[in-house]
Amino acid sequence: MTQDGAEYQCSASSSLDFQYLDSEQTDSADLVTEVALAISYKGVNHAVMMVTPVELDDFILGFSLSENIISSAASLKDIDYRVTEVGIEANVTIHERDFTQLKRQRRQLSGRTGCGICGQEALENLLIPASPVVRGALPDLTVLTHLAPKLREWQRHGQVSGALHAAFFVSHSGEVKACREDVGRHNALDKLIGHLVATKLEPDAGFIVMTSRCSYELIQKIARTGFSTLVCLSAPTSLAVSWAEKHNINLLHLTKNDAPRVYTKGI
Amino acid sequence: MTQDGAEYQCSASSSLDFQYLDSEQTDSADLVTEVALAISYKGVNHAVMMVTPVELDDFILGFSLSENIISSAASLKDIDYRVTEVGIEANVTIHERDFTQLKRQRRQLSGRTGCGICGQEALENLLIPASPVVRGALPDLTVLTHLAPKLREWQRHGQVSGALHAAFFVSHSGEVKACREDVGRHNALDKLIGHLVATKLEPDAGFIVMTSRCSYELIQKIARTGFSTLVCLSAPTSLAVSWAEKHNINLLHLTKNDAPRVYTKGI
Repeated sequence: MTQDGAEYQCSASSSLDFQYLDSEQTDSADLVTEVALAISYKGVNHAVMMVTPVELDDFILGFSLSENIISSAASLKDIDYRVTEVGIEANVTIHERDFTQLKRQRRQLSGRTGCGICGQEALENLLIPASPVVRGALPDLTVLTHLAPKLREWQRHGQVSGALHAAFFVSHSGEVKACREDVGRHNALDKLIGHLVATKLEPDAGFIVMTSRCSYELIQKIARTGFSTLVCLSAPTSLAVSWAEKHNINLLHLTKNDAPRVYTKGI
Repeated sequence: MTQDGAEYQCSASSSLDFQYLDSEQTDSADLVTEVALAISYKGVNHAVMMVTPVELDDFILGFSLSENIISSAASLKDIDYRVTEVGIEANVTIHERDFTQLKRQRRQLSGRTGCGICGQEALENLLIPASPVVRGALPDLTVLTHLAPKLREWQRHGQVSGALHAAFFVSHSGEVKACREDVGRHNALDKLIGHLVATKLEPDAGFIVMTSRCSYELIQKIARTGFSTLVCLSAPTSLAVSWAEKHNINLLHLTKNDAPRVYTKGI
């Protein structure tokens, strides 16, 4: 992110010195933990990503739904974790119908050349729109303008480290219902989605807030799981705006000093 | 990122209203452009990613080097771009020796089951250490404490949008030599690396500064391309610190209000 340069201007007094951190300090809770997680479905690796290793059940459920791997939460039967020297393996058992569909997709993706698909196919596979969501009203303006201090209270991990993204679910009346954090923006959202689905919180019961900027992948995940509103604390990209428009999603930016910006609205 | 909640508390005056952005405004230069880029080597797709479509030659050279696809800049013979409705295809011609090596890796990755590798193999493929870099001295403390305003001057795109990461190369005497920006942290670094290699700036002529937090992938890219120092404007993850240690890299965090933090040092 761009930073306010002036804030980084240290007072260059003659007594200034580096702060050298020893291994005990760098091992301390000040640093965000990031580990490699390999997700396999029925033994076949699907993805490897860096995650903050908390609330992994939520993450795997949310990821499986938002990546269209399972059609409903009931399809996820079991997660078997194995912690190795290099990271965490999660072997996920899903309903046979979804696994057959996943294998079919993978075969299509692996293509006809034996060693990969072409660029055009890869692009088309990436940018597949979801169905438009059920349109929802914009969040209440007063709710939004009083939101920030409440969000901060919920960021348990970020408070300490300052290096985590957070995704929240907020009720229409302004009550924060859940917060999930991760080194990755997508992961924080997947954890939140997994938690909401696992606890049967309906998408229309409120809206999603994210501390990060908004790129199109977040809109894609939100559209696939049926949420109507995303409020970000940083600016969206141009593609995020056009994807939000395409999917009837309310996309807002809660700015630092101005009134909330509405980029797209469903109703 | 975690945000200072208090800053987002708008003054809830009765005249406050949303700022509705029309399509002309959202089409304007205020938004960061993000497009899908598919990189193919000799016609075989290797990766698809979201990028800010400026300085793509730098990006593809840097990516090819930092992902160990080519062994030197001379191996990259040609880049053929094709802009389609869904994104940009870049078909890259590389030296036959590197292409043969890439095909071999892909065959190993596709594994024995016909539809994928297992989780353990996937983890092991991800976390392959590079050779340790040639140890370098820490940047000069005075240079660091006077750096921030200079960085800001170089962030041409980020100034406007506020939603771009930036990677800089700074000489030992504190002169900013280059800046590359992108929606993605890794992409900003790859663009910088590509530019430095293309303009024959030696890794030991200075150090790299990034506006973003530091995760292990940045250290991996820096180690593979031989730079000895990374200064970040946000905190590193635990894995980034251990990888920096392992590769003899100086890893520093230029904090907002305190003296620069040294997490690891090569010398």
